[in-house]
Parts: sequence; structure tokens; C-alpha cells
Amino acid sequence: MNKITSTIKAIKPLDKAAMAKAQERQGTLTKPPGSLGRLEELSIRLAGVQRKPLPVIKNKVIITMAGDHGVVAEKVGNWPQEVTAQMVGNFLHGGAGINVLARQVNARIIVADMGVARDLAAHPSLLIRKCGYGTQNMCICPAMTAEQAVQAIETGIDIVSAEIAKGLDIVGTGDMGIGNTTPSAAICAVITGKPVATVTGRGTGLSDDQLKHKVNVIERAISCNHPDASQPLDVLAKVGGFEIGGLAGVMLGAAAHHVPVVIDGFISGAAALIATSLAPVVKEYLIAAHLSAEPGHQIMLDHMGLTPLLRLDMRLGEGTGAALGIFLAEAAARTLAEMATFTEAQVSEEEAKK
Amino acid sequence: MNKITSTIKAIKPLDKAAMAKAQERQGTLTKPPGSLGRLEELSIRLAGVQRKPLPVIKNKVIITMAGDHGVVAEKVGNWPQEVTAQMVGNFLHGGAGINVLARQVNARIIVADMGVARDLAAHPSLLIRKCGYGTQNMCICPAMTAEQAVQAIETGIDIVSAEIAKGLDIVGTGDMGIGNTTPSAAICAVITGKPVATVTGRGTGLSDDQLKHKVNVIERAISCNHPDASQPLDVLAKVGGFEIGGLAGVMLGAAAHHVPVVIDGFISGAAALIATSLAPVVKEYLIAAHLSAEPGHQIMLDHMGLTPLLRLDMRLGEGTGAALGIFLAEAAARTLAEMATFTEAQVSEEEAKK
Repeated sequence: MNKITSTIKAIKPLDKAAMAKAQERQGTLTKPPGSLGRLEELSIRLAGVQRKPLPVIKNKVIITMAGDHGVVAEKVGNWPQEVTAQMVGNFLHGGAGINVLARQVNARIIVADMGVARDLAAHPSLLIRKCGYGTQNMCICPAMTAEQAVQAIETGIDIVSAEIAKGLDIVGTGDMGIGNTTPSAAICAVITGKPVATVTGRGTGLSDDQLKHKVNVIERAISCNHPDASQPLDVLAKVGGFEIGGLAGVMLGAAAHHVPVVIDGFISGAAALIATSLAPVVKEYLIAAHLSAEPGHQIMLDHMGLTPLLRLDMRLGEGTGAALGIFLAEAAARTLAEMATFTEAQVSEEEAKK
Repeated sequence: MNKITSTIKAIKPLDKAAMAKAQERQGTLTKPPGSLGRLEELSIRLAGVQRKPLPVIKNKVIITMAGDHGVVAEKVGNWPQEVTAQMVGNFLHGGAGINVLARQVNARIIVADMGVARDLAAHPSLLIRKCGYGTQNMCICPAMTAEQAVQAIETGIDIVSAEIAKGLDIVGTGDMGIGNTTPSAAICAVITGKPVATVTGRGTGLSDDQLKHKVNVIERAISCNHPDASQPLDVLAKVGGFEIGGLAGVMLGAAAHHVPVVIDGFISGAAALIATSLAPVVKEYLIAAHLSAEPGHQIMLDHMGLTPLLRLDMRLGEGTGAALGIFLAEAAARTLAEMATFTEAQVSEEEAKK
């Protein structure tokens, strides 16, 4: 049995008993029932994921995976490919958006080179796990081989498993890859069945004409490769990316170990479509941090039945939305665990309850 | 010149030069322009409020004001009035929702007794600033005298000014007062001109019949007192509350000292309606943390032209939403200040910019 299959086999539905206990405790805390809204729901789900009535969100990691994309040859964006590698350097020096937000929420960052187009200098905080030097141009041939698709997902499983072995309460996903809204939109179109034009957005800021061209590129990639929507590995190989496959692996590996995953925006959403197509139960382990400004993101989340916590018109990626989502997950867990009960605080309860 | 008038006189429009510099810096940071969405907007507004290009959100306070309401005699809710005093005790012992969230965002809490119906034991963290022992039943007479309305607002100005004197970068507002969604809905109806039934909600959890009764109580309070919508102090006196007046004072005092105010939910929204009716420029200093589950809250925010940062179906009050909003304000300020520029990080810029 290969690693992907065995990982999927290890993923259980949430622990209903722990959820029932968390829900019961919510009703005893000094507040009107339900008045913490989605934080209460989230605390109960975290209990089910972590399989304990009082979930803990203390040890936090954000895994940011980088990869390049051959489809940039079709001029789908305005940024030069070298920016992927340069931004990895920025992550390693602590100057990117994700560094600032991870510091604020006290999460450590794991940066993984899943397939940047050039060799990166070794760095103690960088995992070099290349599945290739960028994908192929998916307008001409599959983005990667079937073997590379498996490798990317397995690498993600390995990376998150190693972190979990060190102790981990929650993982956030992040990405860096010039051009990667293009494969993400392609995955979204194939898996959700929505038209390419509906799920494709302006990425880092395209004009109307450029957006039209991007839609055309994605349509050509799909018609040239015929990805099979019922075979997530086939979709990943034909129109995906190395960092997208890696993040799907992170989601599978975390779920197998009962660790909640806060997914970032559009690229993490594409990875989540792959992961949840491989194993639908993974949905229960995913917390949608925010709604990206990319129009396809809502379609992805709807397809998976996930409701984003935040709507801040962010579209930076890197895991920036996930960092904010981790903060809210911590708030959910802490209010459940730390608030006093009516009995402890000697506060009278609602008349109707008496 | 009295304290309210002099405070209002001290409130200036935001510093456009600081905002322009913050906006310019946003364009140089290592991210696609605009990709941090509302965090970028917020960082620019904070620059304008604090009158410096790099706003700082480090020294944080949440001011939670408590008061009782004579209108509880009309049975507008299901919780006994004693809960107001009991919850103040819970705040002082660190067991309430606001204590947990304030700890998480590293904000200190100031608890002020603005008019709880009974005497509270002295406590080093409690400001006893009673304007009365609960308001009067506004169905029968004005909730408070004109003098008490002025006293409540001036007390809020004094409390926030004392905190600012100690050093303060941001203030969050919070409330505790059994029955206080009733005066808040009354204030909303009077100031926005919307029907009482439209702005009134279920508070801590009313049935359909109880909601109908609450609407009727508010309509009676308005028709018996004839509050003058163009005179915010008259509205506060006739259908308001001591903690609502106090929070309006906090907003005025903070704005006068260039300190941003993160407003919580429905009760803080009512206070903001009073404050912004007294001095419309105060709006620029207010950050709407979240959209409460109370239906009138959206109407209040629309009236003031504020867009909430979060929509988490929360309706606890105490400043819990404000604590989450303070976290986002800090994220906005930190990304602006701490992210590397393209030049610093040696990252290539967008082709179009070259």
C-alpha cells in the first residue's frame, strides 16, 4: 500500500463524543448560549478534530510551499518568474507578509521548495524537496508526470508528519509561485465543473484583455490534456503544480494525525479540492481562513461546504490568511477552555433555564 | 466651555499627509499592490488617526463599561438584573469572554461601573463612576436626567484621557448591562429614523412573542419621551443608558487625542451613534470590529458609513468583538511597518511597473 493510500486510510471522521462534551461545556460558560457565534462552532469542531473536549491551539506552524509554473511562458501574469525564488529568500529573511503575521500569532514557518525553477541556496529554515524545476507548460503537455504528482503529495505528507512528530496543534497552509492562480483556476474548473471564465480571476492584477487571455490559456490546457475530474491525481498531474500537490499532502497528513488545517486562499483551495477529492472526510479537518478576492475561491469553498471565517479582500497567499485564521482558532479554543462557568463565577443563569 | 464641547473642538480630521505616506509605503512592500485588502486600508486609516506614517499598535486597552436599566421592569429579557453586577465580578476575576480574548491580544481591561443598580465592592481594577443606580424605566419617564447624560459622557472622556496619559495606541469599547439591547435599539430607531421593529433583535435569545413585546416597550418609551433626534444628549437622556453615554465619551476623548477606537457590537454601536451625532468627524476614528447578530447593528454601521471587519455572528458584548478587531488593527500596522520593501529584499517588481 503506498503512502497516499495508507494516509487516507488513517483519516477518521471527527470524534463526536469530544464534540458533544465541548458543546455541553459551551452551554455552561458565562455568556448567553451561542453568543460567541462562529467561535463556538469552531471550538466544537476543533474538539472533534483533536479528539479531546478541550482542544488546545498553542503549537502552531504555517507551511509555505513554493513552486514554479511552465505556463508562465504563455504570459498569464505580470511578474517575472524569478520572483518565486526571490520571495523564498524574503521568507527566509523574515521580510514577507507571512513572516510578520506568523510572528504576531506566534506560529513558526516552514518554507519548502517543492519545485522552484532554479536551485536555491541552502538555508537552515528551507526544506529543499524539489519535484522538478518548475512544471511544464500545461498548454502543450501535462504539467507534470503521474510520478511527480504522487511525489508532490507524498512530500507534503512527509513534511507535515515530521512537524507533527515535534508537537503540533494546528497547521496553516501557504503558497508562493508566480503564475499559480492559473493552475489553481484550472483545477477549480475541472473539479467543480464550472466554466473556466467563471472561476478565473485577475491574480496579482490583470487588465481585462489579460484576463481574457488567461481564460483562453486555461481552456487550452484543459482541452489539450483532458484531465479526468474523477481522478484527482490525474487533475494534479495535468493542470496542477508542485506546491499545490504538496499542500494537498499536508492536508491529508494532518487529517490522518488529527491536526486541524487552516487553509489560506485560492491556491490552498485548489490543493484542498485535490485532497478532498481523494478523501472527502478531509473536509471536516479544514478551516477556511478567509475568502480570497479571486472569484473562483467562493466556488471552491462552496464545493467543499466550507464557510470562510474572514472576508478582508486579501489575495496575497503565502499563508497570510491562514495566519489570521489560526488566531481565530486559538480564540475559539481559549474561550472554550478558559472562560469561567456560571457555577465557578457565581453568576445567575437565564430565567428560562431555572 | 464645558468638557464635551472642548473635547469635540479638539477633534481634527485625519492627517492626510501621514495617510499619503502610508499609502506610498504600501506600494513599495513585497506583495502585489492591494493584496492585503482591508488590512492595507486599515493601516492607512490608522496612520491618519495617529498622525504618523507608521502607526503603532502596541499599548492596547479595552474599556468595558457596566450599567443597569430600569426598563428591565418591563420584562424585556430573560436574565435577572443581578447578572450585571455578577458579571462585573467575573471581569475582575478574569473569567469572562473579554478576559480571555484581551489576554490573547495582550490588551489590558478597564472595568467601569457607570451605573450598576447596586453597590459593588471596591477592587483595584474597578473604576466606580456611578451616574446613578440603574436608569429609570424609560417607558414611564426619561431614562436619566440631562445632567446625568452629560455626566456619563464626561466620565467616559475622563476615563479614556487618563488611560491615554499612561500611553495608549488603541482603545476597544465594551459593555455589560442586562437589558441594554433595549435602549440601544431605541437610540438606533430615533437617530437612524428606522422603524423600531426593524432595528430590534432578540438580544440574549428572545422568543417571537417576547420580541414583539420588546418592540412595543421601545415604541412606548419613544412615544412617551419624545426624544429629539437632532439632539444626541436628549436621545441619550431619554432612551439611553449610563454605559452607553460613557462609551460615547470614550469615543470622543480618544478621537480628541488621536487614538483609534475599535467599537464592539450593538451597544457600542448605539454609543457611536451618540458620539458621531455630536461630532460627525468621530466616524473617521472608529473601526467597526464586527457585525453583531443583532439586526439593528448593520443599520447603525450603514448610518455611520462603517464596514465591519468581521462577521462571526457574535453577540456577547463586553468588548469581545473589539478584542478581535484590535488584533486585525495590529496586523495592519505591523505589516505596514515590518514588511520588507522590494528594494530591501531584492525582489523584482511587476513588469508593468518597470
